[in-house]
Amino acid sequence: MQRTSLGDMACSLARSLDVAGEWWTPLIVRNVWFGARRFEEIQRDLGLSRKVLADRLRTLLAEGILERRPYQEHPVRHKYRLTPKGRELMQAFFALMAWGDRWTAEVAGPPMVLCHERCGEIVHGEVTCSSCGEPLRAEETRIARGPGARVGRGSRYVEHLPAP
Amino acid sequence: MQRTSLGDMACSLARSLDVAGEWWTPLIVRNVWFGARRFEEIQRDLGLSRKVLADRLRTLLAEGILERRPYQEHPVRHKYRLTPKGRELMQAFFALMAWGDRWTAEVAGPPMVLCHERCGEIVHGEVTCSSCGEPLRAEETRIARGPGARVGRGSRYVEHLPAP
Repeated sequence: MQRTSLGDMACSLARSLDVAGEWWTPLIVRNVWFGARRFEEIQRDLGLSRKVLADRLRTLLAEGILERRPYQEHPVRHKYRLTPKGRELMQAFFALMAWGDRWTAEVAGPPMVLCHERCGEIVHGEVTCSSCGEPLRAEETRIARGPGARVGRGSRYVEHLPAP
Repeated sequence: MQRTSLGDMACSLARSLDVAGEWWTPLIVRNVWFGARRFEEIQRDLGLSRKVLADRLRTLLAEGILERRPYQEHPVRHKYRLTPKGRELMQAFFALMAWGDRWTAEVAGPPMVLCHERCGEIVHGEVTCSSCGEPLRAEETRIARGPGARVGRGSRYVEHLPAP
């Protein structure tokens, strides 16, 4: 597949998308998270080609988002599961699922709900401030130069900003 | 551009990706959020083709994520800005940026940082539980049938789950 790499852009959103931004990738992570852990199961559920799935799984293993172990020897078959990096990525996807529930769900309501085992409630993910704990609204947040800022694509505005 | 639509999948993550999952879209939203609001500015910063940018902007307007107003008459030129739906999408992207800062940043550190005007601190987005406020960790959260669940692609597992 020909595509521009975003991995060299000095932006963590771009770099995240370079790993996780392609459509199937988040859905594969979702499937492994909720228990579809074998190649055949994922393929049947998502209805993507075996070739594309094999390709995406290879990337997810190489990126350390998934790990696998054999569950059968002849022929060898693997089960996939999320690494800590993968589990944190799924956590970020909860925020995107909540946005989808709010803005894209049908009249019937959200197709899936999340149960938080810690509190026992039906919940959704909220994006809150790591410092004050309030919702981190886009209109109350601004960007500043980080320590890893550098001149380049996707950084035109950031490079002119003062450090915070 | 030929691609399978995910919009008919009974999954809010899939539906979100159908709108926002394609690489350039989140970066365009990011640019408009931090102040690159004109076509030329976005195009120059991200280094994508005019054709692709025009196409993505059209989708973002149609989806109600961006809105625009003219800032010049001859010829007509527009400034883009985020709608409430777009601002909430940006908020979800803060979670993905935080993941990228943690797992993909270079040794120098994150290229950009977020300042929360509400509390005045350098912060990052955390995905927390809408009910108890604790971090919504993937390993402490499980999925259940929602009111909009239905049989179909991407729902194989969910359709067999009990309602919560």
